[in-house]
Amino acid sequence: MSSQVSISVPADVPETARETYIQNITAITHGTGRLMLFAGDQKVEHLNDDFYGEGIPTDDADPEHLFRVAKQGRIGVFATQIGLVARYGPDYSEVPYLVKLNSKTHLVKTAQKDPVSPLLTTVEQVVRFRDQSGLKIAGVGYTIYLGSEFEDRMLKEAAEVVNEAHQHGLITVLWIYPRGAAVKDEKDSHLIAGATGVAACLGSDFVKVNAPKKEGASAADLLKEATLAAGRTSVVCAGGSSVDEETFLKQLYDQIHTGGARGNATGRNIHQKSLDEAVRMCNAISAITLDDASVEDALALLKGN
Amino acid sequence: MSSQVSISVPADVPETARETYIQNITAITHGTGRLMLFAGDQKVEHLNDDFYGEGIPTDDADPEHLFRVAKQGRIGVFATQIGLVARYGPDYSEVPYLVKLNSKTHLVKTAQKDPVSPLLTTVEQVVRFRDQSGLKIAGVGYTIYLGSEFEDRMLKEAAEVVNEAHQHGLITVLWIYPRGAAVKDEKDSHLIAGATGVAACLGSDFVKVNAPKKEGASAADLLKEATLAAGRTSVVCAGGSSVDEETFLKQLYDQIHTGGARGNATGRNIHQKSLDEAVRMCNAISAITLDDASVEDALALLKGN
Amino acid sequence: MSSQVSISVPADVPETARETYIQNITAITHGTGRLMLFAGDQKVEHLNDDFYGEGIPTDDADPEHLFRVAKQGRIGVFATQIGLVARYGPDYSEVPYLVKLNSKTHLVKTAQKDPVSPLLTTVEQVVRFRDQSGLKIAGVGYTIYLGSEFEDRMLKEAAEVVNEAHQHGLITVLWIYPRGAAVKDEKDSHLIAGATGVAACLGSDFVKVNAPKKEGASAADLLKEATLAAGRTSVVCAGGSSVDEETFLKQLYDQIHTGGARGNATGRNIHQKSLDEAVRMCNAISAITLDDASVEDALALLKGN
Amino acid sequence: MSSQVSISVPADVPETARETYIQNITAITHGTGRLMLFAGDQKVEHLNDDFYGEGIPTDDADPEHLFRVAKQGRIGVFATQIGLVARYGPDYSEVPYLVKLNSKTHLVKTAQKDPVSPLLTTVEQVVRFRDQSGLKIAGVGYTIYLGSEFEDRMLKEAAEVVNEAHQHGLITVLWIYPRGAAVKDEKDSHLIAGATGVAACLGSDFVKVNAPKKEGASAADLLKEATLAAGRTSVVCAGGSSVDEETFLKQLYDQIHTGGARGNATGRNIHQKSLDEAVRMCNAISAITLDDASVEDALALLKGN
Amino acid sequence: MSSQVSISVPADVPETARETYIQNITAITHGTGRLMLFAGDQKVEHLNDDFYGEGIPTDDADPEHLFRVAKQGRIGVFATQIGLVARYGPDYSEVPYLVKLNSKTHLVKTAQKDPVSPLLTTVEQVVRFRDQSGLKIAGVGYTIYLGSEFEDRMLKEAAEVVNEAHQHGLITVLWIYPRGAAVKDEKDSHLIAGATGVAACLGSDFVKVNAPKKEGASAADLLKEATLAAGRTSVVCAGGSSVDEETFLKQLYDQIHTGGARGNATGRNIHQKSLDEAVRMCNAISAITLDDASVEDALALLKGN
Repeated sequence: MSSQVSISVPADVPETARETYIQNITAITHGTGRLMLFAGDQKVEHLNDDFYGEGIPTDDADPEHLFRVAKQGRIGVFATQIGLVARYGPDYSEVPYLVKLNSKTHLVKTAQKDPVSPLLTTVEQVVRFRDQSGLKIAGVGYTIYLGSEFEDRMLKEAAEVVNEAHQHGLITVLWIYPRGAAVKDEKDSHLIAGATGVAACLGSDFVKVNAPKKEGASAADLLKEATLAAGRTSVVCAGGSSVDEETFLKQLYDQIHTGGARGNATGRNIHQKSLDEAVRMCNAISAITLDDASVEDALALLKGN
Repeated sequence: MSSQVSISVPADVPETARETYIQNITAITHGTGRLMLFAGDQKVEHLNDDFYGEGIPTDDADPEHLFRVAKQGRIGVFATQIGLVARYGPDYSEVPYLVKLNSKTHLVKTAQKDPVSPLLTTVEQVVRFRDQSGLKIAGVGYTIYLGSEFEDRMLKEAAEVVNEAHQHGLITVLWIYPRGAAVKDEKDSHLIAGATGVAACLGSDFVKVNAPKKEGASAADLLKEATLAAGRTSVVCAGGSSVDEETFLKQLYDQIHTGGARGNATGRNIHQKSLDEAVRMCNAISAITLDDASVEDALALLKGN
Repeated sequence: MSSQVSISVPADVPETARETYIQNITAITHGTGRLMLFAGDQKVEHLNDDFYGEGIPTDDADPEHLFRVAKQGRIGVFATQIGLVARYGPDYSEVPYLVKLNSKTHLVKTAQKDPVSPLLTTVEQVVRFRDQSGLKIAGVGYTIYLGSEFEDRMLKEAAEVVNEAHQHGLITVLWIYPRGAAVKDEKDSHLIAGATGVAACLGSDFVKVNAPKKEGASAADLLKEATLAAGRTSVVCAGGSSVDEETFLKQLYDQIHTGGARGNATGRNIHQKSLDEAVRMCNAISAITLDDASVEDALALLKGN
Repeated sequence: MSSQVSISVPADVPETARETYIQNITAITHGTGRLMLFAGDQKVEHLNDDFYGEGIPTDDADPEHLFRVAKQGRIGVFATQIGLVARYGPDYSEVPYLVKLNSKTHLVKTAQKDPVSPLLTTVEQVVRFRDQSGLKIAGVGYTIYLGSEFEDRMLKEAAEVVNEAHQHGLITVLWIYPRGAAVKDEKDSHLIAGATGVAACLGSDFVKVNAPKKEGASAADLLKEATLAAGRTSVVCAGGSSVDEETFLKQLYDQIHTGGARGNATGRNIHQKSLDEAVRMCNAISAITLDDASVEDALALLKGN
Repeated sequence: MSSQVSISVPADVPETARETYIQNITAITHGTGRLMLFAGDQKVEHLNDDFYGEGIPTDDADPEHLFRVAKQGRIGVFATQIGLVARYGPDYSEVPYLVKLNSKTHLVKTAQKDPVSPLLTTVEQVVRFRDQSGLKIAGVGYTIYLGSEFEDRMLKEAAEVVNEAHQHGLITVLWIYPRGAAVKDEKDSHLIAGATGVAACLGSDFVKVNAPKKEGASAADLLKEATLAAGRTSVVCAGGSSVDEETFLKQLYDQIHTGGARGNATGRNIHQKSLDEAVRMCNAISAITLDDASVEDALALLKGN
């Protein structure tokens, strides 16, 4: 079990939404305070690159694959765009969802123009959707490209998102990636600690960052500055591109137990597998994140237990 | 008959609009789930190029031609701008309409500036128009130029359009074309599969894309990735510039039966004919799309049966 | 008498505004369906160039000249900015007005920046003004520079203007001029036909374009494509810079009787005359536009009959 | 006494605001129709350049100086930003105020970027402020840089300002200065006549322009075109940088009696003096503007009568 | 004790909010009219640079450090982003807060693009937060980069912020820094006097500027122009980067007693210390600002009294 189980409701959650907030945070962290976020917003972010091609099982070509995994695997919350939730949600109503509010494609590269990701769905729409559909919408997510020339627009929208989400008891996750002509090293640990501090200032419950990297340094050690800077905002690391499972699970274990992360946010390392394998990968990840399992125990789950 | 006839209402259609949604989708797909969309928005998109000039019959010079065809031919829905519907609709009240909400001219080329197409008509206006006029307004359409530097604006507007349209039971069709300085090959099948995936994430009912093309590959085979990526969002291919009828019908047949398309979206291949021929072309297309007719049977209809 | 006298109310005019729409269109076309629009918006568009200088009578230096002409001459409607109508309207309350909603100066040339003309006055303001002042405000006008890099903004505003105007029974006139770095020949007849088609798609009642021009071709013949493309939207040609009266009236006659125009939109050819001459010029123009008079009869009126 | 004393209320002032409008225009013109505007908005426009430095008395370094002058001198209205009025107004409640709604600093030069001056305070805020504070807020002012690449934004805001101000009986003054890369000669008389014509089209009560200048021509003669073009909109000239008093008063006299100006708008020539001198300068100016005094009589007042 | 203790409520504070305004200004100035502002908004402005690294005690790496200091030290108000207040405020409910409404990171340098800092939190949100949370929210802050190409946007937002804040009795502090390609010397005393004058025109209660600097001149003397230009708006100087304590306290003393400042705004010079030292630094600063203590007395407090 994770050691952090007390729930601290931030003061911008009004009295009327406290109960909802507590239910949501409890549900998606399984009462542990740690988040196992299954990330499935890449169909806009990376178009079809993550879902079709050499080395990707055909299961992944159909968007329903994501929902099958989210339903059968052990996860905290499944993050994706509202359109997919609207279309598949009724058939997968047991899944807790986090609506990713903004997205961009990767077609326009930073060399051409600094990144900007527009708010596609407002919190108000999510709340209406939640209330009309009865689906388990527990939170919202938003991406900021820090250091982009359009940083101002995204900081503003992110601040509004957190504010409005908390008014309605929704949990917030900010994806924050330093990116743009002004950013020399996106994985610099000091810069990533800046990013998690920004998330804290914006009042987000969680912040998803890339794991820092530095030649010759331990990634988990590097992460400490960021989890410290985040204060009471919980840090989770993006899974990134697909790596071998053991490495992945080891990294996750260290992020939590050494780096101070409070969970994970994993996409490709889960869904770029056949349904059965993907489900077992979810379970392995959740064992580490939610149960403080060892890497060995998690690997055992992965191998089919 | 098409094999897909069950109607699945997405969860962002509220209870109050479910009946309308079902009626609309049933009406424009003739209960088959497949769409025969007669596209008539080119008077803005291509100015008068598609309606006047060498090889175009004089019938087509008058905008009323489009309405005559839509009325006398067998179609699913006629897509055009609200201004034309307002002016001619009362005299063609039996036609089901889909209002194309955004449009641009082709005067500013991509070499000068990446494409952006503004929302000219809001969903709210369409709903008011529908209710005030009593016309059969069944849906709305919106074009996204994916990969444009202005992609953010169009993704945002498209997401809002789908959200609002579903609130009122209107069916949505997104035209998605990769275009802009960042786009090397607009007809690349993997890129088009990205586009249909985006439509799914935005929650659209239908997505209209250009048929993919690749030297030495079958277009219908290439389309499979896109229809798979779209999941429950139905893919229809743009007819493109005028080709000979037999080729056109053969392509359509293959798009549906091989490529997994759920219909067609045809403009110039219909309206750049005399009224009589255009009507027969509608009927031939509908035979394939709605009745699973063979190309031969469709050609017979075209030839005047 | 003009042959087109039946009034067809577009379907975006709600029941509550039908009577107003019919009264307005009837009033400004004198029941003929043809429009004699006296254009007086140049004090912004051309600053003082059209009103003061060599060859311009001193009468024209005072803005009240425009109102004196509008009152004493026979016209359909006087188009100008709301500020002038507010200031002089009470003293010229018999004049029917069309409020020009957007305007720009000619200081920034296309070589420096593509043209954009902002909405200065909303339809809502016009309606409030109409209701508060009791003046005869029959319609609104808006200019689009098609092919400008800012085309998107103007297309959007124009669409909103038509929509809102019709909600309140106001008649709409769109000034559409192809202009910008992307436009090679602003007077190309095919391009102008594109412009009138755009007006039809936007649902405007009238569209004002420049008369097309081509070396060796008859301007009136060239105009046919545009009036055909406009369908039920009525085309009127801008008068342009001052020419000799006989030429002007001959051109107008041909625009109507050969080119299919449904009226005229004349500014400088009227107001750049002394009051007395300007009034007679109005009467001559109206004779052709409204009474199907011959050029000779019109010239007789001009000469002082 | 000025010859123009009848008050003509423009038609965009609704019945409910007519009395307020008449009271305001009467108060600030002392019933003469002529305006003595004391301009004190330079603390943003020119930062501290006009208030501190060689040749400027220390009285002027404190913003309260402006209020002392406005209270003790004879003026029509004192124009400044709302912040200063809010802070000092309660101690200077007998002063009639005109709130300058937009302002920019002079730091970014035209060579770097064309000028744009944002609306800092809306008319709605001014009305609320007037009603809550009980201060004598008689009007509002707005600056347009005609010929700037951002002209569109300022024309739009100015039009809205006039419209809203008149709804509440407030008097409007537009500062219009041709400026930007496209403007070759800001003091050209024909261009300034264009500017006053724009003010008329926007419906402003007053327009403040720079006095035209041309080698070898009389400035007052040059001004005639502008006052003619303005029609019923009253023209006042900006005082500009400090000049000797006699020259200043002579120019003002000629602007009114030859050029057709209906008052003055003076800042630095008043406040860049000690309190006592500034008060006498106000009185001298007002004698010419409001009493048709001769330059000699005004000079006598200035010298201490 | 400070000599200025009378409270003058500006006229844009409505009757309903006067009492709140007086309570807020009294509380944060301890009834002295002077402000000891503890600035803690750098986690966005400077990312993690001010909180982690060589020479910075580890206490400062955790955002809670700021709250501990604010609670245990003697301060006037603690300025930070709303997200941190929401997260830690309930545990530090005795601290008076000032919500910093806009922020940017320092990643994009002026050489790349002129600075712009977006409004992240509206006054309306702050008021709602204040009322829902019951926390002591006494004011709001906003940064303007004067001379930036985006100055217009920030001037506009700042004006709105002051206006709305006063409607609700909140105290305003404007951070005004000249910055951008057009600004040659950010510390020029005349330019900084321009900045404080702008704050006065915007109606702010306080303005925070950098202390002016000039080779060979006394900074406190240079400041006089700025405090004079600010009139009734109170000037406080930013503490800037960390310097030795004695120098810092001496500068502060001179800013107040020579330069006319009404307080201080200090961040790094406080929080870049261990908790105990930081608390004593607060007390030393407050002794000078609030009690007119001598530098020697303040140093004694700092040394542990």
